[in-house]
Amino acid sequence: MKLPDALAERDGGRIVLVVLDGLGGLPHPLTRRTELETAKTPNLDRLAAGAALGLHLPVAHGITPGSGPGHLALFGYDPLTYDIGRGVLSALGVGFALEEGDVAIRLNFATLDAQGRVTDRRAGRPKDTENRRLIDKLRTSVRAPAGVRVFFEPEKEHRAVLILRGAGLEAELSDTDPQETGVAPLRVEARSPAAQRAAEVLQNVLDDARRVLVDEPVANTLLARGIDAYRRLPSFKERFGLHARAIARYPMYLGVAKLVGMDAMPIAATDEASIETLERDFAAYDFHFIHFKAVDSRGEDGDFGAKSAAIEAVDALIPRIESLAPDVLVVTGDHSTPSALRAHSWHPVPVMIASAWCRPVDTPEFGERACTRGELGIIPATSIMPLALAHARRLAKYGA
Amino acid sequence: MKLPDALAERDGGRIVLVVLDGLGGLPHPLTRRTELETAKTPNLDRLAAGAALGLHLPVAHGITPGSGPGHLALFGYDPLTYDIGRGVLSALGVGFALEEGDVAIRLNFATLDAQGRVTDRRAGRPKDTENRRLIDKLRTSVRAPAGVRVFFEPEKEHRAVLILRGAGLEAELSDTDPQETGVAPLRVEARSPAAQRAAEVLQNVLDDARRVLVDEPVANTLLARGIDAYRRLPSFKERFGLHARAIARYPMYLGVAKLVGMDAMPIAATDEASIETLERDFAAYDFHFIHFKAVDSRGEDGDFGAKSAAIEAVDALIPRIESLAPDVLVVTGDHSTPSALRAHSWHPVPVMIASAWCRPVDTPEFGERACTRGELGIIPATSIMPLALAHARRLAKYGA
Repeated sequence: MKLPDALAERDGGRIVLVVLDGLGGLPHPLTRRTELETAKTPNLDRLAAGAALGLHLPVAHGITPGSGPGHLALFGYDPLTYDIGRGVLSALGVGFALEEGDVAIRLNFATLDAQGRVTDRRAGRPKDTENRRLIDKLRTSVRAPAGVRVFFEPEKEHRAVLILRGAGLEAELSDTDPQETGVAPLRVEARSPAAQRAAEVLQNVLDDARRVLVDEPVANTLLARGIDAYRRLPSFKERFGLHARAIARYPMYLGVAKLVGMDAMPIAATDEASIETLERDFAAYDFHFIHFKAVDSRGEDGDFGAKSAAIEAVDALIPRIESLAPDVLVVTGDHSTPSALRAHSWHPVPVMIASAWCRPVDTPEFGERACTRGELGIIPATSIMPLALAHARRLAKYGA
Repeated sequence: MKLPDALAERDGGRIVLVVLDGLGGLPHPLTRRTELETAKTPNLDRLAAGAALGLHLPVAHGITPGSGPGHLALFGYDPLTYDIGRGVLSALGVGFALEEGDVAIRLNFATLDAQGRVTDRRAGRPKDTENRRLIDKLRTSVRAPAGVRVFFEPEKEHRAVLILRGAGLEAELSDTDPQETGVAPLRVEARSPAAQRAAEVLQNVLDDARRVLVDEPVANTLLARGIDAYRRLPSFKERFGLHARAIARYPMYLGVAKLVGMDAMPIAATDEASIETLERDFAAYDFHFIHFKAVDSRGEDGDFGAKSAAIEAVDALIPRIESLAPDVLVVTGDHSTPSALRAHSWHPVPVMIASAWCRPVDTPEFGERACTRGELGIIPATSIMPLALAHARRLAKYGA
């Protein structure tokens, strides 16, 4: 019997999952309080007084997750079981209609010097208009190998996606991005004998793209990474009986949500627009995932104060979510991004599950230390969905 | 190497496992204290000062366990590995000597209207004398299908058990209880091709029982559920080297205990009688399981005060257990039953393990919050037996 899926019922309460990307932090050297503990969050603190508090581990102790695994775990999918490449996530994120077996590749526009060595792995982060112009040129000029359909899709700045569709294309392929400058791009290597043909196809496409871009001043080559084949996951509807939707401002997060069958609205322009979308269609869904990006971005900037301020900005939106009266309100992050590290980290992530069915909390507050004292303890991130379903009264009893 | 079984030694201390059924709770809206935190429990609180405190998860985060899985987990048997139907538990509970391969089915006496639709799934909860009269009538009048032995056993009120014994009977059968009134009972469906014959046998027996009961005023049909085949589990003696016995007032709990090879005394008439049984044969066993039901019942009634009072009643009996000087005294529940939910719930269950080998506790008390601060943390229920064995000095060192 697979739990909690086998116990999921079709009726029950409405769940909102609020993700502050990169929420967890580390203390300021002077105050010894983290970004979240420093932020003035009257709304989150009030919620915490009636919530189950704890910390979650996205993957495992010591493991720093990317955004894909972090979100899959929050959605209740073990990221070690569902090991999905960034190419697939990006393709879904830009709204490309992937078909089973498509091979998706993340691309960077990059620059090479006359000797063919990488001089900028991100081509100076070109404007999105330049990105789209280059993609149009590639679409019209790159020759598709026999039996293969080739799709180029723009993302933001230097990022794009390549999709290869055709029989017999396996995705066990190495990256061509050398992850450093001053060296040539790597060649595509097949990691399994079955992927040999796909390796040749991708190398041909990349070589042809290099030919098409050779005289371009901003970006004269492509680097490939995060190569993976698209396999549909069991959906939220199938697993949990939930009609679910996602609201986010970046394609990546909508992509992960689509992978598990959530409706993903058009990209929200602002956090305000995200909340308006939530309000507009609130009653039409059982489950809403709403994603706030800025907390992570300010953490990656290494700006402690700005990260705290970004948390405060989300706190100010919480009453609008509360006024929709969800039965269960989960607030957490997909991973920690301490500003001291300027990067994702392995630290457990504060989580609160607010519902009518929570145990009392001593000195409630939404912060790393208060969560350490909470009723949940330190839980795998994949336990958040079973708990949210339980609090929404959507799980039948196990055994008589 | 299977742990802790491979390390179990034949000698060591004596263990008492006290189960307050449905112990865990949720806060009162005014006082923010749970039923257990509200109850005056001077004896449990004194014990807590010298005990290891924590909370246990019977099955997994978010999963609400039935009594069967809850007790199996407390006994150290993963309920997902040992997925046992209620029919088997009930048959064991009424003292029926199940043989390997017997198919056991839980029955409700129920009422049908003239159109064959269920009007009361419990036949107005008949008296036990009426239950026994109907069972006697079924025993003498229902015709056994060829090659099959049929046993009817009364339980309490509307509950009874049916056992089918014969070669080639597989138990993958669906319930006939529709779980609602106004509709006809369901037909028995085989969930695997091998169970086809058993499906026909059971449907025949139920049809014949309907014929026998057709003019009965109190209950004119049977509904079947919880169908399972009996497979002996590795026993407490085999796994842990423990000569164990169970004391309880309801067949269900004795049934689970028998499943793991415990001696199960005749059903105790009162909690006082349970304690007297414990006192009488205390030295004859290495392990005693003693079960108190009222805490769960008052939780299911939704009566916060009565649940607290039921906890206080058990607290008053604790000194008599202590005076027997067990080396290890475990006090816990098999699941939570918050009176606010009037039902079993998924919340972790307070547990204490009192022995001479516990770490100091700040502000000791037996309650949900104090247990959250305890040395055990939140543990799987199946870890309680290894811990109890360790505290009883019954486990050898692992590795040299």
